[in-house]
Amino acid sequence: MARTYDVTTIGSAIVDIIATVDEDFLLAHRIPRGVMTLIDEQRAHKLHQALPEKREIAGGSAANTMAGLASLGARGAFAGKVRADRLGEAFHASMTELGVHYATPMAKGGPATGSCLIAVTPDGQRSMSTYLGANREFSVSDLNEREVAAAEILYIEGYLWDAPLAKEASIRAMSAARKAGTRIAFTMSDPFLVDRYRGEFLDMIRNGTLDIVFANEEEAKSLFKVDTFDDVFQAMHGWHGMAALTRSEKGCVIAQREEVHVIDAAPVLRVVDTTGAGDQFAAGFLYGVTHKLPLADSGRLGSLAAAEVISHYGARPEVSLKKLAQSAGLL
Amino acid sequence: MARTYDVTTIGSAIVDIIATVDEDFLLAHRIPRGVMTLIDEQRAHKLHQALPEKREIAGGSAANTMAGLASLGARGAFAGKVRADRLGEAFHASMTELGVHYATPMAKGGPATGSCLIAVTPDGQRSMSTYLGANREFSVSDLNEREVAAAEILYIEGYLWDAPLAKEASIRAMSAARKAGTRIAFTMSDPFLVDRYRGEFLDMIRNGTLDIVFANEEEAKSLFKVDTFDDVFQAMHGWHGMAALTRSEKGCVIAQREEVHVIDAAPVLRVVDTTGAGDQFAAGFLYGVTHKLPLADSGRLGSLAAAEVISHYGARPEVSLKKLAQSAGLL
Repeated sequence: MARTYDVTTIGSAIVDIIATVDEDFLLAHRIPRGVMTLIDEQRAHKLHQALPEKREIAGGSAANTMAGLASLGARGAFAGKVRADRLGEAFHASMTELGVHYATPMAKGGPATGSCLIAVTPDGQRSMSTYLGANREFSVSDLNEREVAAAEILYIEGYLWDAPLAKEASIRAMSAARKAGTRIAFTMSDPFLVDRYRGEFLDMIRNGTLDIVFANEEEAKSLFKVDTFDDVFQAMHGWHGMAALTRSEKGCVIAQREEVHVIDAAPVLRVVDTTGAGDQFAAGFLYGVTHKLPLADSGRLGSLAAAEVISHYGARPEVSLKKLAQSAGLL
Repeated sequence: MARTYDVTTIGSAIVDIIATVDEDFLLAHRIPRGVMTLIDEQRAHKLHQALPEKREIAGGSAANTMAGLASLGARGAFAGKVRADRLGEAFHASMTELGVHYATPMAKGGPATGSCLIAVTPDGQRSMSTYLGANREFSVSDLNEREVAAAEILYIEGYLWDAPLAKEASIRAMSAARKAGTRIAFTMSDPFLVDRYRGEFLDMIRNGTLDIVFANEEEAKSLFKVDTFDDVFQAMHGWHGMAALTRSEKGCVIAQREEVHVIDAAPVLRVVDTTGAGDQFAAGFLYGVTHKLPLADSGRLGSLAAAEVISHYGARPEVSLKKLAQSAGLL
């Protein structure tokens, strides 16, 4: 069948609340460094008030990836739950402005729209405190299987495994994708999340559910419980699908069956905020895969998109990734 | 047959003359940065006099590798030409002290013993001006084919291609190795050298002459005339022999047929002088190969030996590499 979308994604619908802080702030508020921690509404409220000079930007890992894909000119659909509150309206508007199809009904009541308090330390590292809120309400009834079947790739963020109803809907979406011949891509999202759902994630890799896996080095080490990158690589080398193993400044390794590519990180003048690096890598890579680029160039496009987003605050591109990729000779 | 030596090598017999200099010194004396340049006796004499506070240490790329192998406990033989002058005696003594078999007759006359003026800049980078001297006299008549046949691996440094007689002897040695079932390892030595002998080096890779190839990223890019590391890797991936592609702080990639390992650089507190990094990598790797270590561990042992040598001045290890490797759990 004709595919209406390059990528359909199910992801957390979240507004980022970004603030620059010093190391003492992390200590004082007991925020674990460099990872994502789930918090409840009460703590979200407290942290929100403590954060200095914050900015609100529509975020959410897979939603950021859709923004990157849109910036590259891809056609996308997003599914994720917000409440019809101020942040929910803002999130919805941001997706629509990007030209991303977004038709999940807003909740009239229940938990508030999810938010992620991102504390950025001077080294560009981001420590995230996530209040899932309305995302926990995304369920099978919100799923539009036609949007899945109409996509070349279904992209699912691992974060959803922390929201049981959304996880159930994701599994349903993967079944729909399989039936429709839609390839399934999955991001491991976070090393601690991987620790919570290791067995399930490994099963999805080994039983052929997934066609494309994104994992950064820490997530992949957590997944396979190994200490070195080479051990991670050995565990994925020869896998039938595409494995995109990202390594921050060390670049990435892309592997599919016996094909292997060792790609350098794209140059960045100054790393300002690493938020969204993985999300934008996925955007570039998925654009490449859906537009029949060679595997190595898909990796390079991912690296280029990641380099753009870490050179400024915020997890979505600030310039046209399409033009950037054209300048780099990748498109 | 029983092998008397783990590794027999033919290499330049050279005494390093090391001095710390600033960038201005390189400019003032027109020394190309970070590479090896050949100089004549007159320029060697002039540079020698201009260098401030210099130290003399026995060097030579393959000879340094033999020092590393000896430090790991391997049995080695070295062949290379010095004159019976002060530096020649010093070089000879250094090899004998290491327990390396070294029986090449000293020249009674002719060019002086070779020397390498190593200018080390504050960033740890070394710029080398090499006077080959007596090394140009090493010829087939100096070659002891029994020493080659008695080794598990014959290790040849590419630098010898700049000395026609030594190159001829090396080619003869490789024939002897092939007949004896001795594996042949070769290092590309220098990007400009690779540029001079690209066709011959490519032939040796492609026609099955070589079993093990060492190349750093710049050498390998020069060899295949490509711009990215992944292009280098694609050119070597699937090769029948072992390819050890070193990448400075990015670690190394080891490949043999469909086996691939992506190994991180071993940690170094402070990079003092990168001289000998490649030589010691080769030492660790060849030790691993001759002692039946898994390919990945041979790469790790190479990285460990390289990390030791760049943490101080000079191209040979200052501590027991064997103990270091034992502490790291590699031996």
